[in-house]
Amino acid sequence: MTEHYLEEFAAGQVFNTGHLRVDKEQIFAFAKQFDPQPFHLDEKAARHSPFQGLAASGWHTAAMTMRLMVEGEFKPAGGILGVGFDELSWPRAVRPGDELHAKSEVLEVRPSKSRPDRGLIRVRTTTFNQKDEPVMVFTGNLLVPRRPAASANT
Amino acid sequence: MTEHYLEEFAAGQVFNTGHLRVDKEQIFAFAKQFDPQPFHLDEKAARHSPFQGLAASGWHTAAMTMRLMVEGEFKPAGGILGVGFDELSWPRAVRPGDELHAKSEVLEVRPSKSRPDRGLIRVRTTTFNQKDEPVMVFTGNLLVPRRPAASANT
Repeated sequence: MTEHYLEEFAAGQVFNTGHLRVDKEQIFAFAKQFDPQPFHLDEKAARHSPFQGLAASGWHTAAMTMRLMVEGEFKPAGGILGVGFDELSWPRAVRPGDELHAKSEVLEVRPSKSRPDRGLIRVRTTTFNQKDEPVMVFTGNLLVPRRPAASANT
Repeated sequence: MTEHYLEEFAAGQVFNTGHLRVDKEQIFAFAKQFDPQPFHLDEKAARHSPFQGLAASGWHTAAMTMRLMVEGEFKPAGGILGVGFDELSWPRAVRPGDELHAKSEVLEVRPSKSRPDRGLIRVRTTTFNQKDEPVMVFTGNLLVPRRPAASANT
């Protein structure tokens, strides 16, 4: 798939991803390494937690969403390079057996004032489970290069 | 270490973590699974990217920070349960060999109006490398239970 420069992005564009299934063992493996809390590691403890059942770490959901994005339709030239986010939430727990997919919408395109070779695009990405319920939403700015002058007319 | 209920948190409190070293193999392993982009997977390609060298995925840094927090001084009763963030940025790349630590500062404590058994604390966490340069900053709300009535006087 072709990579896209800043000039090719426009507010309102939507990019989809494929699907990724998460099982109990993956939830445990991520939690053991990065978020070793009972509600991500122990089914019984999880039932008595605010999650009311085993749930993936929110950072695991973020990492899976990144995987989906890297392999999805959204192809900024030079890669997906997040500068920072000003909204990140997990409206619903991710459960063993869930199948995730994500959708990224371009909200704004801004050429850099100080660096003529690049710009920022503001993107909101929503991750959904198999019932199309949102499990994660994040909005922020990604760095995208402008089309190099040499290939401006291609 | 004792776990803390909402009543024990106050703006201005600071909680530190231990240290976690990240090597090239860990950067590759995380990227392969969750963020398979050249600047996280290939030293030569990374030199020609905006990172100007191999860098950990930002989500890897987030996951390592979570690990540091879970094992650090910050012990809300019931665990560390992020509801959402409204600031998340990576001011500097994390490199192979970096040793990370983090600091969480309580900015605000707010009992829930609708749920008398809980509240939110607003926390800013900054992750630093071994030179005390910030590599990640995130600010948001965590869910913390209020002290149960039965143990109110203990």
